Amino acid sequence: MAIAFPHFIVSDKPTVESAIMVSKPSPVILTQDELKKIAAYKAVEFVESGMVLGLGTGSTAKHAVDRIGELLRLGKLNNIVGIPTSKMTHEQAVSVGIPLSDLDSHPVVDLAIDGADEVDPYMNLVKGRGGSLLREKMIEGACKKFVVIVDESKLVEHLGGSGLAMPVEIVPFCWKFTAHRLQLLFEEAGCVAKLRTFGENGKPFVTDNKNYIIDLYFKKDIGDLNAASDAILRHPGVVEHGMFLGMATTVIIAGELGVTMKNKQGLGSQR
Amino acid sequence: MAIAFPHFIVSDKPTVESAIMVSKPSPVILTQDELKKIAAYKAVEFVESGMVLGLGTGSTAKHAVDRIGELLRLGKLNNIVGIPTSKMTHEQAVSVGIPLSDLDSHPVVDLAIDGADEVDPYMNLVKGRGGSLLREKMIEGACKKFVVIVDESKLVEHLGGSGLAMPVEIVPFCWKFTAHRLQLLFEEAGCVAKLRTFGENGKPFVTDNKNYIIDLYFKKDIGDLNAASDAILRHPGVVEHGMFLGMATTVIIAGELGVTMKNKQGLGSQR
Repeated sequence: MAIAFPHFIVSDKPTVESAIMVSKPSPVILTQDELKKIAAYKAVEFVESGMVLGLGTGSTAKHAVDRIGELLRLGKLNNIVGIPTSKMTHEQAVSVGIPLSDLDSHPVVDLAIDGADEVDPYMNLVKGRGGSLLREKMIEGACKKFVVIVDESKLVEHLGGSGLAMPVEIVPFCWKFTAHRLQLLFEEAGCVAKLRTFGENGKPFVTDNKNYIIDLYFKKDIGDLNAASDAILRHPGVVEHGMFLGMATTVIIAGELGVTMKNKQGLGSQR
Repeated sequence: MAIAFPHFIVSDKPTVESAIMVSKPSPVILTQDELKKIAAYKAVEFVESGMVLGLGTGSTAKHAVDRIGELLRLGKLNNIVGIPTSKMTHEQAVSVGIPLSDLDSHPVVDLAIDGADEVDPYMNLVKGRGGSLLREKMIEGACKKFVVIVDESKLVEHLGGSGLAMPVEIVPFCWKFTAHRLQLLFEEAGCVAKLRTFGENGKPFVTDNKNYIIDLYFKKDIGDLNAASDAILRHPGVVEHGMFLGMATTVIIAGELGVTMKNKQGLGSQR
């Protein structure tokens, strides 16, 4: 839970104001989900009519997709084409009335908005705890602008620093072998590699691309991220990993003291 | 067709001799398939009882699998465990009586024998025109020794130099986008990227891992192969590519003038 003060103004749009209840004179306690919503609504301010939009996946991105649908219905946006980053987002976007396409038809994306699981001081990300890292990386890698929306709990000193998973999508064939190789690769960082499962029976979680996810947990900083990225990708069983390096152009962080926006050039932040 | 002369002796094992018919006093015309068989039989001489073996895929490797099965039946080999690199090889190995396992159960492989589509002077390979590059790379990357068997038509000055395909396995999701990106990546080498299809209706060829294959055709040398490898792997839609760099420990080449064997250290060749 976070406390918002009266000066907590992120936008003068009425719908956003109502969402965060800034009109109360005393401190307002905001849930993590409300913080996510604030960041999401702020990001949607970047959207202009006529844009091709990458639509993210997860609890934060969901708010952005809902908001885009709302603005389309209100006629404040039009001529939008959405490219969903997962089957789940596809369904959500259809339900809120966003016209959809794909990268094959729209290989250039104007703007993508998505959440992240971790953000380091250099705007590198961990994504994919929701399991959609591959499609997210394909679509967000094709964007002119990639706006990342998080609550402040996602900020870390270094990737892996939250102690939560850094996911790697792998082919199911001989997954134990690949998991073991990945764990060995980061042995010095105290890495533990675990197959992601779901349900009571512990069945493997299967991605939209029919692959498995190996979650890597690190005890220490893994060092040079670009080197780590290449080393992971060189393993033949690996399809993709959840480190998004140098891809975010803007990060919007909703926290106790307001909304912070960082841009790629590192030219300061704004409230 | 190649011409074999009487001095064409690759082994003193009777079964090999009979296979290549070296006993005739006049030049013998050998087909490409017979050359493949000679290379395959020579490679099987590396096999010892008790080994875990990576079993390759394709028209050349098929001869090696048949030969291993034959030696097991004859009692000249025993206690062999085979790790097949494709469903096709799995079926063949079962049919010739080779006990099988996988990398999960046997993560260390003593020896793999497989063909290749191209071999450059540094023993780098192109593989995967048969569509099994991913499993081949996983298994052959886990080997202590990797013996490559080819007829001399597979030798090239540089990878891609045969003018035939360098395959890249990709996820089906937005394959056109990925194909286009790959073509752009090697634009300077005059690259053309084509989806591999099969049958009269031109349906996409689907790999054992349910992925597609993009075949890259180059007009020029692509230069630094390790850099090219990393650049391909960094594309999110890419699962694996068919360049096997620095992996072969021995290359056995069957040609008109005999069998040549190159070892990784580059310490000369032998007939």
